[in-house]
Amino acid sequence: MYSEFGFIEKIRRRSVSRSAKIGIGDDCAVIAKDSKTDLVITADLLVEDIDFRLDWTTPELVGHKALAISLSDIAAMGAKPVWALLSIGVPEKIWNTDFPEKFYDGWFAIADKFNVELVGGDVSKTPDKIVIDSIVAGEVKKNKAVLRSGAKTGDLIFVTGELGGGAGGLKLLDRGVWKNPEQIKLWQMDLLNRQRQPFPQISIGTILSERNLASAMIDLSDGLSSDLAHLCAESKVGAKIEAHRIPIHKKLSEISPLKNEALELALNGGEDFELLFTVNPKKISRLKKVLTNYKITCIGEMTANAEMIELVSASGSSILQPAGFRHF
Amino acid sequence: MYSEFGFIEKIRRRSVSRSAKIGIGDDCAVIAKDSKTDLVITADLLVEDIDFRLDWTTPELVGHKALAISLSDIAAMGAKPVWALLSIGVPEKIWNTDFPEKFYDGWFAIADKFNVELVGGDVSKTPDKIVIDSIVAGEVKKNKAVLRSGAKTGDLIFVTGELGGGAGGLKLLDRGVWKNPEQIKLWQMDLLNRQRQPFPQISIGTILSERNLASAMIDLSDGLSSDLAHLCAESKVGAKIEAHRIPIHKKLSEISPLKNEALELALNGGEDFELLFTVNPKKISRLKKVLTNYKITCIGEMTANAEMIELVSASGSSILQPAGFRHF
Repeated sequence: MYSEFGFIEKIRRRSVSRSAKIGIGDDCAVIAKDSKTDLVITADLLVEDIDFRLDWTTPELVGHKALAISLSDIAAMGAKPVWALLSIGVPEKIWNTDFPEKFYDGWFAIADKFNVELVGGDVSKTPDKIVIDSIVAGEVKKNKAVLRSGAKTGDLIFVTGELGGGAGGLKLLDRGVWKNPEQIKLWQMDLLNRQRQPFPQISIGTILSERNLASAMIDLSDGLSSDLAHLCAESKVGAKIEAHRIPIHKKLSEISPLKNEALELALNGGEDFELLFTVNPKKISRLKKVLTNYKITCIGEMTANAEMIELVSASGSSILQPAGFRHF
Repeated sequence: MYSEFGFIEKIRRRSVSRSAKIGIGDDCAVIAKDSKTDLVITADLLVEDIDFRLDWTTPELVGHKALAISLSDIAAMGAKPVWALLSIGVPEKIWNTDFPEKFYDGWFAIADKFNVELVGGDVSKTPDKIVIDSIVAGEVKKNKAVLRSGAKTGDLIFVTGELGGGAGGLKLLDRGVWKNPEQIKLWQMDLLNRQRQPFPQISIGTILSERNLASAMIDLSDGLSSDLAHLCAESKVGAKIEAHRIPIHKKLSEISPLKNEALELALNGGEDFELLFTVNPKKISRLKKVLTNYKITCIGEMTANAEMIELVSASGSSILQPAGFRHF
């Protein structure tokens, strides 16, 4: 019996590397395209009642999110999305509703924003639940894809945007706010949008790769504690982050007045689809210049303590265990 | 409410073509790779209790078939498979068995035969049933991918191998032969193998594209009547095929002594994963020379009666309606 990540690691060791420059173990695989370009590609499986609930969202938002989470993986490589495949399985009772059409409406709305072309996929029947597999390919200049494995001791750790909002939105859905849509408050809608309609950070990702600014990058899908642990494992370094520097989503204070609870959501909640990246200290001034229009926050630095993450807070220092989302 | 193919057609019209040379509507999408090569890519969704049943097969054979059916799409473009993504969702109770490991055993066994590299994918939990999305990419010389749309009036129609075996195997499974495995006869095992362990026709496909021999091609997954109809629709021509020339799987006579029933399985049964291709009459002698070691059969010719398929048999001529597999 394996944990999800243990099993993936086993499959990874079994896969012989031939055409892929980077295979299993990063946000995307990296495959040589031509003399100037690499192709990056990712797949994300979404399952009804595991990854989404029909009464908690809309068909359009399921379509949006299916593509957005894959675009976030493309962003994490510093690549620009180009084309996509979409496989969808639905039960007969859903086929005979407007779900399929509205799902594709939502998918195409965000695809058009990012110039993503649907080139193929599959349509199938399922016995009971909806399943979606979202495959997206992107392009990046040769050898410029930003990997999880490039972080060095002393590199500073940055995150984009604010964290914990995705998990905060999930908490609201779990509490049943969707049952009375007319009573949803503005701050609640902010958090619900973070959960149901994530926005992939393609612009920041491509700037970082084009300007050679990031030594390593990952998208925050499982949760900061888990995703930083993935990056540390691939880079064979450790990290020290400071709790008070973590940009916690402002509306989380409305959910809970306890600061610790908001921090917990930011650390372990997952589904923020922001980027976490590391930068050589010498490049910081240039980084700030080119990202002046974007919210980025330095939360700590990489250390030589391989695969150990230290969390420094007012009450002292502790070891941060990966406690983000996992299926198994 | 749409039929499956009607819905896909609608999605296809909505998709703006940019990077893809061929998008939705063929066995694979075709995307320019470099100055000498095109990339072809396909996705196939397999759902437990729709596309396979655990008591009718083994985990290894599910892994084999998941990859084989996508390789068959690659073969239908005349391409050579290169890399793959594999997304798999399993319920917790299956995760805690040896299914995942044996499934990958079967997948890797055929992947190694065809030099396919696993570069990524996803692992997820499902509430109840196993789902698999198999994505395979192949390479073909620039502009040499064989499309569904190239058939011309007068081209001869060929199929590889024998037809109806996949459907014959399914019939045996439906009759319950799997309940007494020690009593399965040799001829039954032949048909079961056709159903559970299909073999993709990569060699024939690549020979046809490299030698410029096929004007159009499709793999026989839904069934001859449906797949020939797809090819006719894309090529905007019709077809006339002769019943007595269709290479019916020999072991089907053991299932039913009625010739009509075997013909019905060969026409509409699906899942044979043989290739159907069309050839300009001038190229026939060259075709026979280069494919001398392979079983191919001419079953008829393309006609000017757009999208109409005529079936000629001893009892006369009739219009053949597409009656192969469809989900909706």
